[in-house]
Order: sequence, then C-alpha cells, then structure tokens
Amino acid sequence: MSRAESRPPSYGSTRGRPRSKAVEQAILEAVLMLLEDGVPLADLSVESIARTAGVGKAAIYRRWNGKEDLFVDVIRAAEPAERELPGTSMRDDLVLLLESLRQRSLARRSSAILHTAHAQMRSSPKIWAAYHSGVITPRRDLGLEILRRGQLKGELRTGIDLELTIDMFVGPLLIRTFVHHDPDLPDGLPEQIVDTVLHGLRPVGSPRS
Amino acid sequence: MSRAESRPPSYGSTRGRPRSKAVEQAILEAVLMLLEDGVPLADLSVESIARTAGVGKAAIYRRWNGKEDLFVDVIRAAEPAERELPGTSMRDDLVLLLESLRQRSLARRSSAILHTAHAQMRSSPKIWAAYHSGVITPRRDLGLEILRRGQLKGELRTGIDLELTIDMFVGPLLIRTFVHHDPDLPDGLPEQIVDTVLHGLRPVGSPRS
Repeated sequence: MSRAESRPPSYGSTRGRPRSKAVEQAILEAVLMLLEDGVPLADLSVESIARTAGVGKAAIYRRWNGKEDLFVDVIRAAEPAERELPGTSMRDDLVLLLESLRQRSLARRSSAILHTAHAQMRSSPKIWAAYHSGVITPRRDLGLEILRRGQLKGELRTGIDLELTIDMFVGPLLIRTFVHHDPDLPDGLPEQIVDTVLHGLRPVGSPRS
Repeated sequence: MSRAESRPPSYGSTRGRPRSKAVEQAILEAVLMLLEDGVPLADLSVESIARTAGVGKAAIYRRWNGKEDLFVDVIRAAEPAERELPGTSMRDDLVLLLESLRQRSLARRSSAILHTAHAQMRSSPKIWAAYHSGVITPRRDLGLEILRRGQLKGELRTGIDLELTIDMFVGPLLIRTFVHHDPDLPDGLPEQIVDTVLHGLRPVGSPRS
C-alpha cells in the first residue's frame, strides 16, 4: 500500500471511496502539471507522477495498466462541460462556439493536452481516438446542430456540405493553435471569422452566385 | 570510415563529392522510409538508419550532430519546388495552392514528415522551427501574394486582414490533415472551399454587408 493511502482512515469522513477519489484526482492533476511544464509524455515516469501527486507508485499501478490508459483518463477528466448556447441567432451561437475554442487554445492546460495527445497520433492511436471522441466530436456535433438550426431559420444557405461548413468556421482558428507555439488569437477573432465566412470575400457590389 | 565509403573510388567518376552526396541521399531516404513506416522519431536509432541506408554508423555521425539535425535536413531535402502559378485569376491560383496542399496531405511521405515534426513541437522547438520556415512560410507567402494580386485586380475586398484571409482558405483543408489519420480530402475540395469562402454562406438574396 502506498504511503499516502496508509494514513489513518480519519482523513475521510466516509470510508474508502472519497479517499480513493481524492488520490485519483491528485494523480490526474500531477500528470497535467507535468505536461503543462513541458515534459513530453514519453519522458513522464511513474516515479515523477507519484512524487508530484504525493502518493506511492502502487496507487498508480493499481488504477491504470500503463501511461497510455492514465493519459486517456486525464483527457476525460480535464474536459469542461460545454456551456449552453443562447440560440438567439446562428451567428451568435457560432461566435460563442469559436470563443470557447479560442479560450481553450489560449489555456496552457488545454493546449498541453491537445499537443500531447496529437504528438501520439501515429504511435498511440488509442490516445488520439480518446481525444477525438472526448473533445473534438462533442464540439463538432454542437457546431453541426447550430448550422442545422440556422438553415431552418433561413440564416444559412441550404444544399451545402455541413461537415465542410463547420470546418470553414473552426479551421482558421484551430489551424493557428496547431501550427504555432504561441498562437495569435486576439480578442474579437471569433466575430471576425464568423462574419467574414458568412458574408464572403468578394468586393462589395460584385455579383453573388 | 564506414563500410560503404571504403569502397574503391572507381564507383564515382569525380572523386569524393558525388559519392559523398549519394551516401547523404541514402541516409536521408532511409530516415524517410522508416518514418513512413510509422516509426516515431524517438524510436529511430542510428543503427536502424545506417542498416536501412546500407552505410556505416560513422557516415551518419560524421555528417550530423544528432537525430535532431539529421531530421532538419530530411525536412529540407523532401520539400518539392513550388509550381509556378498561372496567374489567370485569384480564384484559380487559390485553387492550385489548395490542390498542392491537398496532394501533400494525401502523400504518405509529406504526411509522415508533418506529423513527425509536429510531434516534436514542444520537446524540440528547433525541428518545428525548421518545418515552419522550410515548409509553412514559403506557402503562406505565396498565398499572401495571390491575395494581394487579387485585391489589385478587384477580385478580393480591400481593408481585410490578409493573414486571416489566407487562414480562411487553407484552414478548412489543413485542419482535416492535422486532426485525422486518414483525412477526408476528396477531389474538388479545393474548388469547393475557395468558391464558398469567396461567395459566403448566407442564403442567396439576403443582404450583403
């Protein structure tokens, strides 16, 4: 049994569960802190995670089969609940969606998770799949729902490829996050992207097809 | 001296240089082959590179200080010369630019280089900087030139942020390359993106700001 877990039971009010949950949280938090500090997943040792979390190595080995499974849980635990969309207009909902992506890209924590997961894309497809299903897909589905609602309300053309349309809104913002260490994501970028993509780039007064 | 290089000089018509160039090529090619096979850069050993290239390890140590420097040269060597743009219209030039990005994203070789370089973004900034200056920046500059020409010829609005505008064209395509193992990049995608971004997404007949 680990040092941290061999403390007297008086530390938790109910026995077992809450204590165990707290240990798990401390471990997930330790991984996040180390990744935020720039340690690549490959260099992350169970020793350093245990030391940072203040638990014994056994507490980690007991819960996870390996670093891959542990990091999959880190991805799941770090995902914030998505805010409700006000639904006043498609334009405003798209701006909010992009603003939440912008905030995530600027946050050291989300950015460390993204880059760590993406770095494993080829060598550990399981990790990237967890990121995909846990982080990318829910947001993408939300975007598609916004677009469908926009079509129903006459705010968006019909007969277009909605999968591509969502990429047109999120692509310009996300590509900066992927390509740059310190991405240029100024205030107001979501509005600028949404309005430009909706209105098009041809000179004012030119024919519209 | 390596086994490969201790062969009699009759192998090359002029002495030293061509032979040495061939060895270098074989080494760079070997790294590419191994990366294409899915070996992560971290697992690439000088032994396996030397064996694949059919040269001795000394031939590698003599030329590069380490794997990082070697991979920077792999990036430089693999970059194809950019095609001339016909310049018939901004629209057509943008389609050609995106088509060349699409082809690169579909090519196993370019894709392996991109993902390998990107996986090192946090742990080896030198590699990502080389990819940035050798691959991303030249294409970005070409895109900006196309847009400036388009503004001069009245094909594109003035008073817009050109850096963001180029991201609006390349973002939807590149984000698929980054996010998916096997990106959905069908024939005709460049035309579809360029025309949609130029024309906008509002329903036909709606007011245009």
